[in-house]
Amino acid sequence: MPRYRITLEYDGSRFVGWQAQANGPSIQSAVEDAITRFCGETVRLHGAGRTDAGVHALGMVAHFDLERPREPRTVMGALNYYLRGQGIAVLAAAEAAPEFHARFSARRRHYLYRIVNREAPLTFDAGKAWHIRGPLDAEAMHEAAQHLVGFHDFTTFRHAQCQAKSPEKTLDYLTVEREGQEVFIHAGARSFLHHQVRSMVGTLRLVGDGRWTPDDVRRALEARDRKACGPVAPPDGLYFVAADY
Amino acid sequence: MPRYRITLEYDGSRFVGWQAQANGPSIQSAVEDAITRFCGETVRLHGAGRTDAGVHALGMVAHFDLERPREPRTVMGALNYYLRGQGIAVLAAAEAAPEFHARFSARRRHYLYRIVNREAPLTFDAGKAWHIRGPLDAEAMHEAAQHLVGFHDFTTFRHAQCQAKSPEKTLDYLTVEREGQEVFIHAGARSFLHHQVRSMVGTLRLVGDGRWTPDDVRRALEARDRKACGPVAPPDGLYFVAADY
Repeated sequence: MPRYRITLEYDGSRFVGWQAQANGPSIQSAVEDAITRFCGETVRLHGAGRTDAGVHALGMVAHFDLERPREPRTVMGALNYYLRGQGIAVLAAAEAAPEFHARFSARRRHYLYRIVNREAPLTFDAGKAWHIRGPLDAEAMHEAAQHLVGFHDFTTFRHAQCQAKSPEKTLDYLTVEREGQEVFIHAGARSFLHHQVRSMVGTLRLVGDGRWTPDDVRRALEARDRKACGPVAPPDGLYFVAADY
Repeated sequence: MPRYRITLEYDGSRFVGWQAQANGPSIQSAVEDAITRFCGETVRLHGAGRTDAGVHALGMVAHFDLERPREPRTVMGALNYYLRGQGIAVLAAAEAAPEFHARFSARRRHYLYRIVNREAPLTFDAGKAWHIRGPLDAEAMHEAAQHLVGFHDFTTFRHAQCQAKSPEKTLDYLTVEREGQEVFIHAGARSFLHHQVRSMVGTLRLVGDGRWTPDDVRRALEARDRKACGPVAPPDGLYFVAADY
């Protein structure tokens, strides 16, 4: 029973999220359906991360098993054919070892959060970035972000319904960089809590627009209290970039 | 009677083109309607270039006159309000001299053509770039492009219905550069013939995939014959970047 590893790019604004749900199309169901249409087999697709509604991916890793072996190239071509026009593309496909698991084998996950910082509304980037009109000090945001790097109790930056056993996580890096009117926030960790990146970004924004100091972010972290978190950033700007194994 | 100069960004995939037409929404009509809704005046909007259906703009310049003076900041805010959700944004607005004309005063126009060169279909970039699957030699394309730079009779690269009085134009620059899976083609000239950029790009693509040599492009130019042109590139990848005055 061969196992396949695929890398997916998707426009999350067209989906209710990664996981199958009753209220609209999910990425997981769309890809599972495409696999079934391709080879007639009913499979379960496992992803490295379960992105929320509106969250995008540039390189989501997922795996599934087939009864009958197929060429990875054929798998990629066929899935892209059945997914056409849906906003999901298979960037790569390969056979994987039987013990490979997209979710449990991942050693590190990388996310990007995009902000477009300008007066005018978004056209091409509508739904693909967080639009912030007022001035934003990316350097102050970067300085504040460094308080969050390392091993911490991230209760402040965790969704109330987060299912993780522990709020303690190691954040490997969190950087904020401006390029013209865009602000790019990169985050990496073995795993993240539910809404952790969007909670951290929403809080850093308060530093960016001068309402908070970088030290206020450290205090919010130390409070270990969801109420100390800034307003959660919208899903529009969040991209699952890659998973390391 | 104050004249206003505005800079527009738009997603051309949602429009029949710049000019008002019976078969769907045009950028010109959308902006003229927004001006009327804002101040009650009926105006004519003049653009630096008349982009075709599906062609985008990052910085189209346009002008119009109002009977009653308004603050440029108010104009920008109001137009963006009435244009919301339509894929058009006003990036800047300023008062202009009475003799300023967005089309006739322009000394140079800059276009960008984007190619995404990869196996997988496009998601975020669908309708925003030309998707080419096979290998593309950007260096050979750049070499070929240099044959087109300068003062030439561009009959080969001109739409059969082009209205320009003369096919003779000076192409100031035409560069082809690869950045990862993207190929960027930049073109600048005082003015372009109808379909000139897309005709040049479509022809350079034949060099990129090895069907033509750079010298074949020179011969196509010298033929001064529309039939010597390669297949015209799709509008999806074309962006009006800026106009100089």
